[in-house]
Amino acid sequence: MNWNLDADSRPICILGLGLIGGSLMRDLAAAGRGVFGWNRSEKTVHAAQRDGFNVSEDLQATLERAEASDALVVLCVPVPALPTMLEALKEHAPSVGFTDVTSVKAEVHALVDQYGLTDRFVGGHPMAGTADSGWSVTLKGLFQGAVWVVTYDNAVSLGDADSSGSRWVDTWVRVVCMAQLVGADVVPSISRRHDGSVARISHLPHVLAEALAMAGDAGGPLALTLAASSFRDGTRVAGTAPELVRAMCENNRSSLLTALDETLEILHSAREALADDSRDLRELAAEGHAARGRFEARAGRNKGDQTNRPIIRVRPGAPGWVEQLESAESMGAQISIF
Amino acid sequence: MNWNLDADSRPICILGLGLIGGSLMRDLAAAGRGVFGWNRSEKTVHAAQRDGFNVSEDLQATLERAEASDALVVLCVPVPALPTMLEALKEHAPSVGFTDVTSVKAEVHALVDQYGLTDRFVGGHPMAGTADSGWSVTLKGLFQGAVWVVTYDNAVSLGDADSSGSRWVDTWVRVVCMAQLVGADVVPSISRRHDGSVARISHLPHVLAEALAMAGDAGGPLALTLAASSFRDGTRVAGTAPELVRAMCENNRSSLLTALDETLEILHSAREALADDSRDLRELAAEGHAARGRFEARAGRNKGDQTNRPIIRVRPGAPGWVEQLESAESMGAQISIF
Repeated sequence: MNWNLDADSRPICILGLGLIGGSLMRDLAAAGRGVFGWNRSEKTVHAAQRDGFNVSEDLQATLERAEASDALVVLCVPVPALPTMLEALKEHAPSVGFTDVTSVKAEVHALVDQYGLTDRFVGGHPMAGTADSGWSVTLKGLFQGAVWVVTYDNAVSLGDADSSGSRWVDTWVRVVCMAQLVGADVVPSISRRHDGSVARISHLPHVLAEALAMAGDAGGPLALTLAASSFRDGTRVAGTAPELVRAMCENNRSSLLTALDETLEILHSAREALADDSRDLRELAAEGHAARGRFEARAGRNKGDQTNRPIIRVRPGAPGWVEQLESAESMGAQISIF
Repeated sequence: MNWNLDADSRPICILGLGLIGGSLMRDLAAAGRGVFGWNRSEKTVHAAQRDGFNVSEDLQATLERAEASDALVVLCVPVPALPTMLEALKEHAPSVGFTDVTSVKAEVHALVDQYGLTDRFVGGHPMAGTADSGWSVTLKGLFQGAVWVVTYDNAVSLGDADSSGSRWVDTWVRVVCMAQLVGADVVPSISRRHDGSVARISHLPHVLAEALAMAGDAGGPLALTLAASSFRDGTRVAGTAPELVRAMCENNRSSLLTALDETLEILHSAREALADDSRDLRELAAEGHAARGRFEARAGRNKGDQTNRPIIRVRPGAPGWVEQLESAESMGAQISIF
């Protein structure tokens, strides 16, 4: 097996050309990879074609082409559109490997399993994006320095035998190399652990931002006039389209519920301390500050700061590689493959 | 009365040369105002002197000079240092008007009242600052475009008679003009309404940021590695020194409790919707988004955007001016005086 995608001449096929799919297409093309794609909207297809990309409105033809060229298929459609894509993939591209980019992974794995496609699937989640959507907002360099989670649920079921020749491992490597080619740092994760983590650091922030925006707004014009950077930053993601917030949170209910219940416990305890003049907020202020400090030590204080993540070398499919992945996951490490 | 501070030759005396006091001194001096000050730390005094400012470690001498020159005194010390300052002010500067810059106002008004200094006091709160402190972090232009709240509790007790010749109104005008001279937009507020508002838009964001930082951190290294901009922005103010967070929140307990209880109600209701598969987060997502939209309409989406606040003209001390101030406050409007 050759784990160097630069030497892999097989193309990449992107289904869905919104912010993530479209930006991925731009970067892959700029890196010299063969890439083609599909979008259901004529307007998007024409816009992408005008920008010189090889895209189509014909899903069947696109998938047949993917099958013929052994393309890696990347599903960049919203969660509700996944069943249609999986059905079409099953019918028109019966052997290609595929990945996705949605922000929940256990639910997608379960759906893929329902369609009997698990052995061709590697879950993915690039931690990048903005509140905007559509081809017109696609960007070059969107994934540069971002974390791209790649699931390895299947590696666990393959067991510890040498599976370096496995078709699934080949797909897994292609997904990792694609993410790295566009500048992302790949972090491996089992889908349910990914979902537990993103509930805490992505879905919970959205829920708190919505609640803060409402509580501030309830203070009327004076409160909104006095609102400065702490309110602005704390409510920024409440500017995200409500349907996107719902899709994230409602597709990750049980993990989000765990994170939200922990948060409610912290807030109730702060509330009790506030209501009692003989008590203080020492615990909340000290623990919150220490927690933010650990985040800054890892990710830097400001966006774009140098991150400080360990790197773990992984040999795909070799005996012991699952332990390498588990070890990387538990450290929140990015991987390099060799 | 002359409401134009440019034509007012009386100096300004700043007690406490940290981020707010030191930056104010820089801007007032740059605007050509007579300004002198005091700080208790020798190191700070020497640093400010090296930068060319007229500052001293001798509180008594500084206050005697303020009294002799009818300076406006600005208290820029932390809340716990206020009693010492008020005592010194009473003894060594028995007639000058003064203001403060602390982030709670009702408690400071009550303290000033205890010292019998209410008729010389106008509360102030510039909505500017960073998590850093000390002379070394002082900045030119810190207040440019920031809101500076000026309280008018005393104007209400003066009643509706023409009080334009009142000494207190003179102090009030000097505070407003000083804030405007350094580029701030003055918004009038009664102290308890100010405290209710900042509980919602400043103290509550700190409490939520601490809780979010803790809930994210509890997810361990994987969660911290996956954390991106929603977590970064949502926890930014958890980087504030814990003692500053405590000072803000613990000095505004009852208002913060009201805001926190409202937030807990919103979060509990979201929690119940999440726990029930037949329900959804439509309400939270829609209302939070609408609330953020109203904030953006007033304050812009990003820091530094053009704000969209009404401006109300106020004639200090003239019959009806309290109604002008109340009207400005209820609209969250800034004022211009004439």
